[in-house]
Amino acid sequence: MAKEKRTVEDMSIWEDARAMIRKAQAEGVETAWDRLEQQTPHCTFCELGTTCRNCVMGPCRVSAKEGSKRKRGVCGADADVIVARNFGRFVAGGSAGHSDHGRDLIEVLEAIVEGETKDYSIRDEPKLRRIAGELGIASEGRATMDVARDLVDACYSDFGSRRKAVGFLSRVPEKRRAIWDKLGMTPRGVDREIAEMMHRTHMGCDNDAPNTLIHAARCSLADGWAGSMIGTELSDVIFGTPTPSMSTANLGILKKDTVNILVHGHNPVVSEMILAAARDPELVARAKANGATGGITVGGLCCTGNELLMRQGIPMAGNHLMTELAIVTGAVEAVVVDYQCIMPSLVQIAGCYHTRFITTANKARFTGAIHFDIHPHNALEEARKIVQLAVDAFVERDPKRVDIPAEPVKIMTGFSNEAILGALGGTLTPLLDAVKAGSIRGFVAIVGCNNPKFQQDSCNVGLAKALIERDIMVLATGCVTTAAGKAGLLVPEAIEMAGPGLKAVCGALGIPPVLHMGSCVDNSRIMQLCALIANELGVDISDLPVGASSPEWYSEKAAAIGMYAVASGVYTHLGLPPNILGSDTVTDLALNGLEGLVGASFAVEPDPIKAADLLDARIKAKRVALGLQP
Amino acid sequence: MAKEKRTVEDMSIWEDARAMIRKAQAEGVETAWDRLEQQTPHCTFCELGTTCRNCVMGPCRVSAKEGSKRKRGVCGADADVIVARNFGRFVAGGSAGHSDHGRDLIEVLEAIVEGETKDYSIRDEPKLRRIAGELGIASEGRATMDVARDLVDACYSDFGSRRKAVGFLSRVPEKRRAIWDKLGMTPRGVDREIAEMMHRTHMGCDNDAPNTLIHAARCSLADGWAGSMIGTELSDVIFGTPTPSMSTANLGILKKDTVNILVHGHNPVVSEMILAAARDPELVARAKANGATGGITVGGLCCTGNELLMRQGIPMAGNHLMTELAIVTGAVEAVVVDYQCIMPSLVQIAGCYHTRFITTANKARFTGAIHFDIHPHNALEEARKIVQLAVDAFVERDPKRVDIPAEPVKIMTGFSNEAILGALGGTLTPLLDAVKAGSIRGFVAIVGCNNPKFQQDSCNVGLAKALIERDIMVLATGCVTTAAGKAGLLVPEAIEMAGPGLKAVCGALGIPPVLHMGSCVDNSRIMQLCALIANELGVDISDLPVGASSPEWYSEKAAAIGMYAVASGVYTHLGLPPNILGSDTVTDLALNGLEGLVGASFAVEPDPIKAADLLDARIKAKRVALGLQP
Repeated sequence: MAKEKRTVEDMSIWEDARAMIRKAQAEGVETAWDRLEQQTPHCTFCELGTTCRNCVMGPCRVSAKEGSKRKRGVCGADADVIVARNFGRFVAGGSAGHSDHGRDLIEVLEAIVEGETKDYSIRDEPKLRRIAGELGIASEGRATMDVARDLVDACYSDFGSRRKAVGFLSRVPEKRRAIWDKLGMTPRGVDREIAEMMHRTHMGCDNDAPNTLIHAARCSLADGWAGSMIGTELSDVIFGTPTPSMSTANLGILKKDTVNILVHGHNPVVSEMILAAARDPELVARAKANGATGGITVGGLCCTGNELLMRQGIPMAGNHLMTELAIVTGAVEAVVVDYQCIMPSLVQIAGCYHTRFITTANKARFTGAIHFDIHPHNALEEARKIVQLAVDAFVERDPKRVDIPAEPVKIMTGFSNEAILGALGGTLTPLLDAVKAGSIRGFVAIVGCNNPKFQQDSCNVGLAKALIERDIMVLATGCVTTAAGKAGLLVPEAIEMAGPGLKAVCGALGIPPVLHMGSCVDNSRIMQLCALIANELGVDISDLPVGASSPEWYSEKAAAIGMYAVASGVYTHLGLPPNILGSDTVTDLALNGLEGLVGASFAVEPDPIKAADLLDARIKAKRVALGLQP
Repeated sequence: MAKEKRTVEDMSIWEDARAMIRKAQAEGVETAWDRLEQQTPHCTFCELGTTCRNCVMGPCRVSAKEGSKRKRGVCGADADVIVARNFGRFVAGGSAGHSDHGRDLIEVLEAIVEGETKDYSIRDEPKLRRIAGELGIASEGRATMDVARDLVDACYSDFGSRRKAVGFLSRVPEKRRAIWDKLGMTPRGVDREIAEMMHRTHMGCDNDAPNTLIHAARCSLADGWAGSMIGTELSDVIFGTPTPSMSTANLGILKKDTVNILVHGHNPVVSEMILAAARDPELVARAKANGATGGITVGGLCCTGNELLMRQGIPMAGNHLMTELAIVTGAVEAVVVDYQCIMPSLVQIAGCYHTRFITTANKARFTGAIHFDIHPHNALEEARKIVQLAVDAFVERDPKRVDIPAEPVKIMTGFSNEAILGALGGTLTPLLDAVKAGSIRGFVAIVGCNNPKFQQDSCNVGLAKALIERDIMVLATGCVTTAAGKAGLLVPEAIEMAGPGLKAVCGALGIPPVLHMGSCVDNSRIMQLCALIANELGVDISDLPVGASSPEWYSEKAAAIGMYAVASGVYTHLGLPPNILGSDTVTDLALNGLEGLVGASFAVEPDPIKAADLLDARIKAKRVALGLQP
């Protein structure tokens, strides 16, 4: 956790990061670590979740502690109510991010169907028909665009007010759906649950913390089983379903002799066009004419990077805390962003170099950025302009300020559920047999972010290593991808770090013990995989020897993901707590009470080895309950 | 504004309030004024809007001040970004409240259409057909339920993702729509704009304060011209369009010899059923048998009260700051609530007396309350149980603790636009002639809340009086209703307090100089009236000699209302600022910059006379621009 006067070594486990932090310090560039130091100590009330700004009778700050003079806000809300309201809005923010991203994919598919774009097309028609079938849309013998039109309708309906349940609940085990129905947790519509969360948390609405948290769970389920899932599935339909391939990671993917463009944010819609434009021979020639003899490199940051890594194999420059540092190399001509997790500081840091900071979404403008308003009808054309801008910026690169501090590391990517099933010969049976035999004791998804409160990636990597040693297979998404990749965990050779059972299974299949399953919205793939396994075994998701973890999370979206994982029955570890500790009621519900309601709860533990112990214990217990060896 | 050691006289202008504050103090009952004192001084950062809790790299607090050591949060967001994000979510909270209320009315209409309820029906069929026509639904020769079904579809569509613009924009002057289109401010769907606001304010999305504020405006317009407007219009269809009638107000409406039930919250759906049940002869007889010789009184609080006052003429016990004090009378058997603005403290205060505190909406549970889950299919049946519970509580009333501190004051209510047009003989012409002649110089809507930071109702009443003196007609909704009513401003005799022109016009029509137009969602009536007048004159709303004010506002909904008023072109006064003063950019945009964009801006002024001067100056300027005498 954050300390004063941290050494550079304390800030990150990576040499590329450390070198760039030192360069930033030398060049007077402020980074997230500096700002964390300025912000530490944090306001205790805000940290405990007991401040309220939901009306102007306040702002209020309360404490439930014995002897406190401020037990209630002006309206009368106590710490339980205030913490629950704040956490509810926090989850709504995360759910909204993922889901509004999902909506953008529906709009692109609609533009394809309506012939409003030629820049996008349907690359995976079998998947289109398959998911249409899951949503009850007739597919056989019908024209692709007719099926797609119905799919667009069905997906939009999940964002409306008229459904009793979102469409992909057809994937959820019946036992789980019954639990949700009983608790009033069944997600009806994505936007509806978000808006209702905002309504409930207005002064004088929901003033019963457990009731508010149940809706927070419902809101998150609308994300996991609709907003995010639609985002994933339609991205596959439009851009292709990922299959295993090799790539590379760390700042070494930036090249001295290429124009380096980093795509950052979350959505493949714009970044796929940037990549396509960067492959345009005319622009490559222009890059070479400008002195970039190697042409153009498109590298990935965060989840936009993951999207393109999964499907196009582009190299990954880094995860959340590398986004500032990538610019500090002095070798980046342009950072092209869509939305989410893009530190506003990037504008200032880009300004310290020759780097162009380019925004592409009206809903994510940055003061001081170069903006291109990209829509399905003009995407490739605008992307070409952006790439040209980057290419022309190359001449301003100052070689004396360039420092690319590492050699890239190999990674394997592309493990969609379709790819996993493919590798298994089309059926889950070999995998389940391995689980039953104990060669694979269970699965843990390690997902989410970086947070400068932790030594960067120490927990992400530490936990992954500790789990595979114990024959627990790890599924990685989001910012954990690059962490695991840089640690050498995303290649088949990493089986040497795994326990004997996992080593044998992965060795036979030629896959790594840590599988890269995609971006943060792609955690929906993991939910689907859990549902597939549970349905195959005829049990609930909460009966499976699985767990989830977000060791270094920072984002509201991670809270939404954690919440839908737990509500779906997956025990979930967090490296640090959300701002809920000011309420015993809410904290106890999160850590214990939810277990009785949904068969899973949260655990908070900053130490990765202790976290591995907790997840291992859970997996043991679930294995025993299934009649398996622990 | 809040001071330490306030006298009871400083807390409210009303004798009934003062008496009950004293009684609460004597009986050891804590009220909002006590809690405000505990919370004062407020946290400066929260008050300025410069704290951020939107991720767990923080919480952060920044200051734009020269020499500040914390100019940016950990992510790099500065004061402008943080203030804009917080204000955006604040407006989203308010928009969500109104709009989720509107959705509930659609659900009731759907239940009527589908035959799922007999407790509700269509009371104003001509209005159903009229608004269906406005939304492009064929009506002539069609069965009522067929038209209603199409209306349900159209209204639900306004909550979805597929529209380019919400339906009732058909009411908006063309010039105004063009401004919105140009600015990207046209509201597409209610829930969508709310969810997008949550997305934009996630870390790393919208980091340009003006862009965020434009979406806040769009989100509020989705409230004013869709969510709230649907709430108003469907309530009229289902419960009847208000017509002028007389009633009474203040705590004197509670009777020593009746079972007193107060309905509180915002929605007529439940409260109409409570009223119906309270008129059930069997339950009235039971009340009498229990010793309540006068039977049952149903009184109103806040906007649920306004809804029933407008349509059913029930008496008003009080506004926001009277809700606690009403219970302190010791004469209330039950407070029956739906949602919004219901102080959580009411549970504790009810517990100090024999009062039953009853919740009826799953989205607004209160720990410690008695809950009835009310839906269209069971509403009247459950309402009967609630009324019976109140009737049986009467025997526990302790006459020694009862103090009803006032005699009720007469008020006139029911001024829907239909009623106003009716009073004018079916056309706006007489009203516009009066405006042109200068007898009525203009109109100001005074709306919104109480806030204990002000002497209760001093500004609400002070401003209303100052305006009518200047021949400016006042339109009142929400908590201003009871304020104006208690001050004697809501009766035709109040023309004696008006200027000569207004006195003459109102005198001729037999109406008060302050017209009660409904609840807070009914501010949509005022927007519609502005649009009607602007269309009649062939000008934009921003050209009209009108203004709005919320002198004692406290709620996120008031911020949403203010925002949609300004975005619609109505100059809007607030008695205190939202938590935006930490950003010069946002503050300047609110107070000045918006004028250039949407032709109206906010003004902040705690003093009601100075506020009247500001509104008067605006009206003068607009009159002159229209070629009229100032």
